[in-house]
Amino acid sequence: MARQIVVNARPSGEPVRHQSIDAVRDGIRTRRDDLVVVEEPLEIRLAPLGDPGPGRPISITMRTPGSDVELALGFLHGEGLIRSNRDVASVHECGADRNVVRIELAADVPLDLARLERNFYTSSSCGVCGKASLEAVAAMMAAKPVEGAGNVSAALLRSLADGSHSAQPVFRDTGGLHAASLFDERGTLIAAREDVGRHNALDKLVGARLLADALPLSGTVLLLSGRASFELLQKAAMAGVPAVASVGAPSSLAIDLAERTGILLVGFLRGDSFNVYAHGERLQ
Amino acid sequence: MARQIVVNARPSGEPVRHQSIDAVRDGIRTRRDDLVVVEEPLEIRLAPLGDPGPGRPISITMRTPGSDVELALGFLHGEGLIRSNRDVASVHECGADRNVVRIELAADVPLDLARLERNFYTSSSCGVCGKASLEAVAAMMAAKPVEGAGNVSAALLRSLADGSHSAQPVFRDTGGLHAASLFDERGTLIAAREDVGRHNALDKLVGARLLADALPLSGTVLLLSGRASFELLQKAAMAGVPAVASVGAPSSLAIDLAERTGILLVGFLRGDSFNVYAHGERLQ
Repeated sequence: MARQIVVNARPSGEPVRHQSIDAVRDGIRTRRDDLVVVEEPLEIRLAPLGDPGPGRPISITMRTPGSDVELALGFLHGEGLIRSNRDVASVHECGADRNVVRIELAADVPLDLARLERNFYTSSSCGVCGKASLEAVAAMMAAKPVEGAGNVSAALLRSLADGSHSAQPVFRDTGGLHAASLFDERGTLIAAREDVGRHNALDKLVGARLLADALPLSGTVLLLSGRASFELLQKAAMAGVPAVASVGAPSSLAIDLAERTGILLVGFLRGDSFNVYAHGERLQ
Repeated sequence: MARQIVVNARPSGEPVRHQSIDAVRDGIRTRRDDLVVVEEPLEIRLAPLGDPGPGRPISITMRTPGSDVELALGFLHGEGLIRSNRDVASVHECGADRNVVRIELAADVPLDLARLERNFYTSSSCGVCGKASLEAVAAMMAAKPVEGAGNVSAALLRSLADGSHSAQPVFRDTGGLHAASLFDERGTLIAAREDVGRHNALDKLVGARLLADALPLSGTVLLLSGRASFELLQKAAMAGVPAVASVGAPSSLAIDLAERTGILLVGFLRGDSFNVYAHGERLQ
């Protein structure tokens, strides 16, 4: 049974804004109005059940406004801090510029502040942040295998690039966004999210499925608009995604993680061609 | 006078590795050997002068091996923790997999560990990490203007895309890397660095110029292979870069920061066309 989270959401900020630019084409400069993608900070705060305070800041991420609650929930899921919507009591958006999401954990969900204090420190990386040491990164490589990983057809993969584009309105307007799109085994689009940060796009997507009580994401294919990094595969593995296809190149560590967790990993998906980097035995 | 830093560097790890893949082209699957870009964690540690300990972990970043000392120094410069090579006493690479860089600060450089403890916490973002609050992000927007910002010719901008490519050998091999390339006012390449993370590529570039005692980067043009985010503009502003050209789209906050700090910002630089987003009055 799907559990109802108390969500106190505000209207989202705009994902694009108008910008006056000089367009230079063949040596001719023309003043015109353009659309650019909005990038603004979002602070994610975590509080134990019943805590009346502002909560503890867990992360500041530079994101495109919109789906902020999903972003916060997806981020916490990727970090292993929550496992389903049952772990969340309430969600509130606050701050003058709608730039804070405060999440109150359910009664039985541990929030070890001392451990957070110890383990979380700054990082210029994405998603792998907040781990105490290189050993913690290595530990993530030992993520448990995804369950219910079935076969995927080459025809399905070829159909994805087109299907996804229809769910990227802001990219179409600005050329400035990454997208994460989720399909079922027949290639039907389940959900798609966009963001200036590809990690944010995937967090929003996972958060949306968490809100729908649809985790783990068995029997799905995840399409990434850009390159496939370790971080993105790690978030996908945490969400139980059995197949990941990226338009760009995968990294070495992304391939290693896909290999270990049983994820079918495809890269350079363009038109009729693609490369298979892990678990090609599941490609039909 | 250039100061000599004690650098105890090891041979770098390889930036690419061979990978057996299935290439699918027009329905035909072929097993072949491919090159993929390597992604591995690097931990940056900071220690006060004379401290015999392992130092304090400041950041773990997922990077492509190579130029790791430059990456660590550039990261610290972007965070405002060091200002020149005179702020660094020694640099040591350690760890079984050459994945730790320990930097010992010079005598007069403050390392307020209590402040670090307070201000740095995890973030899924890049580069904006480690700030205590949204107010800290706002404070970065108030970065001081770059000095010695001269005019840039449209002909120079048009020449950049070609010149940079010659300095991206790993991208040519794998299609998996971002690049940051620095040119002088005549369009001559000064230095270029590549990485799976665009923030790392820029950190490596700034770190290389810091080692050469060549900061601030007055009279240069920075070329970014991808999109221009707030984070990249912030690092550029800290390094005193007066002009930034990106192949991809800039974000709203990147435009705002360029506007405030006096940086000429160009986006969508492709062949004979580009867009000017900030300080177009300096384009000749």
